[in-house]
Amino acid sequence: MRRVDVDDLDDLAIGAAVLGTGGGGDPTIGKLIAKEAIRQHGPVTVLDASEVDDDALVVPSAMMGAPTVMLEKIPSGDEIVTAFEALQSYLGREITATTSAEAGGLNSTMPFTVAARLGIPLVDADMMGRAFPELQMCTPGLAGVKATPMAIADEKGNAAIIETVSNLWTERLARAATIEMGCSAMIALYAMSGRQVKDTMIHGTLALCQEIGRAIREARAAHADPIAPTLAVLAGHRLFDGKVVDVERRTQTGFARGEARIEGVGDDAGATLVLQFQNEHLVALRDGRAVAMAPDLIMVVESDTGAPITTEELRYGFRVTVLGAPCDPRWRSPEGLALVGPRYFGYDLDFVPVEELAAG
Amino acid sequence: MRRVDVDDLDDLAIGAAVLGTGGGGDPTIGKLIAKEAIRQHGPVTVLDASEVDDDALVVPSAMMGAPTVMLEKIPSGDEIVTAFEALQSYLGREITATTSAEAGGLNSTMPFTVAARLGIPLVDADMMGRAFPELQMCTPGLAGVKATPMAIADEKGNAAIIETVSNLWTERLARAATIEMGCSAMIALYAMSGRQVKDTMIHGTLALCQEIGRAIREARAAHADPIAPTLAVLAGHRLFDGKVVDVERRTQTGFARGEARIEGVGDDAGATLVLQFQNEHLVALRDGRAVAMAPDLIMVVESDTGAPITTEELRYGFRVTVLGAPCDPRWRSPEGLALVGPRYFGYDLDFVPVEELAAG
Repeated sequence: MRRVDVDDLDDLAIGAAVLGTGGGGDPTIGKLIAKEAIRQHGPVTVLDASEVDDDALVVPSAMMGAPTVMLEKIPSGDEIVTAFEALQSYLGREITATTSAEAGGLNSTMPFTVAARLGIPLVDADMMGRAFPELQMCTPGLAGVKATPMAIADEKGNAAIIETVSNLWTERLARAATIEMGCSAMIALYAMSGRQVKDTMIHGTLALCQEIGRAIREARAAHADPIAPTLAVLAGHRLFDGKVVDVERRTQTGFARGEARIEGVGDDAGATLVLQFQNEHLVALRDGRAVAMAPDLIMVVESDTGAPITTEELRYGFRVTVLGAPCDPRWRSPEGLALVGPRYFGYDLDFVPVEELAAG
Repeated sequence: MRRVDVDDLDDLAIGAAVLGTGGGGDPTIGKLIAKEAIRQHGPVTVLDASEVDDDALVVPSAMMGAPTVMLEKIPSGDEIVTAFEALQSYLGREITATTSAEAGGLNSTMPFTVAARLGIPLVDADMMGRAFPELQMCTPGLAGVKATPMAIADEKGNAAIIETVSNLWTERLARAATIEMGCSAMIALYAMSGRQVKDTMIHGTLALCQEIGRAIREARAAHADPIAPTLAVLAGHRLFDGKVVDVERRTQTGFARGEARIEGVGDDAGATLVLQFQNEHLVALRDGRAVAMAPDLIMVVESDTGAPITTEELRYGFRVTVLGAPCDPRWRSPEGLALVGPRYFGYDLDFVPVEELAAG
């Protein structure tokens, strides 16, 4: 058990945006909302998964939608509490703790708002080990946990409780509601026992985010390579150095979709890397050949600062370094790849681990 | 209080399809499902609105979506009970009775399924006095009753409870869910006290449907004009006699939209009537001039039998008579016209009552 205060959130948000692989929302907005909640209600108690009682009731809270929209339609922090309380009331049982749905700039910090405002602990874990665009892409789901009953709420005061026959149907109905709500909404879902948190979630995500954020900050203060620490922590690979020459972006079926084209510099001069994204980066193609693909992590950072860049921030002229890192091993199982592998996202590619592609 | 049995449903479904003004679903399917439920569970007790206790809890049950889809995706009767029971469980109170959301082929008979299967009475009333395409178009809403909490369910087992800040938002979120569910779903909404049923609903709709259906049947048996009785009961007007020469139809944003073109015969020879519909007929234009418009009722019947034809059945070659009749007077108020007048549906027309247009 530890206490997370306002000052801890800067490192945490940076690390979360790295793991967000381009998605998971803007780290600045999530941080500001969480800081405000902690200033008003005091520091948040963060529990390791091992510290949660087996019969506790734990519910992840998150933002759903297109991060591009969130930049213009900033959440107040009320709607995520509305969603959480709607689910608690529907379940008819007090929720013991909240936790993170995914690692990502916004979704790693939003649950702090819920924890601070409701005075409940936050479990240091998440359901993806990175960010993914759809609700069924969660390790508890892979292990048979149902996403529903799920609550969804918007900033206007509209809310819904959804019960579905599968987590894919949860995604479909919640996405339709999110689009109607203006392409962003707040959600509470995958209600779990403490036992299920231990068995099916990815543990220590917040600590990992803080570690990455701190390492980047310290490297910069020491005028050392600001990218090396991220690679070290994530067992990652430097895939490409270059300059963004084109970003094509559209908000489609409630997602921020598009692709970015990067022209190589230094050792990569003469080559081109194309990144394709759906909220998150899904495939990196170097001169047409895949060098990393979902579910592995593809991360874009500023070459000179090591700071993560979300897909919605990517623009012409940025000097960036593209990194790849292995995903949680559960995602590389046949069942995991069926949920989040390249073919699910429409790419005619068999999954090859980033470390194999880098080796050869 | 009276008992409605299997044999009563034939007249009732015909009359309901007349009031459905082209929408409200197919009368045959609704009747078959209701008959099956009554055969299994016994006759349904129908109450007049005046017989309902002021503190009773009454909830209309209905089908939502494009009737065109319902013809191919026939409901089992289970999903409407699922929706109704989901709302009852959410309200945490036993629902005393169900009632009809609208008058229409399917939606006048679907509530019999709920009443028969759950052993509760059915209140003889509805919220439109006809069929309309959207959820906020209900007289209780006009009087300030909220459509939510609302339950929605599909045939696969998916369901949701929706709470919104306005009845227009209920329509938006429920429509998005309906589209995702395959363009048809079952709903329970506008939970009301008995007092509200008395004050805000349109009374005696089922009796009126039966009266119309019986009058058509008896006129045909007597080889009399089968259209005159409908006109007499509804204080209606014969607008046009003709042959359907073209029907353009599309399922768009979850509705059956389109227009039908009718070439005049007899006294109407040489003229053309165009009907524009969104599930229901909304405007009738004779040689470009409006002869009836929403919220007044525009009904298409077979010229030789007086039988109602829904928009999805309309096709080339049908010999039809188009009728107009005044809507419930509440719809002609400024507030009513804001909800269901021609401008709401996108027509650049000021509402003129059908009886004035017929006189002029």
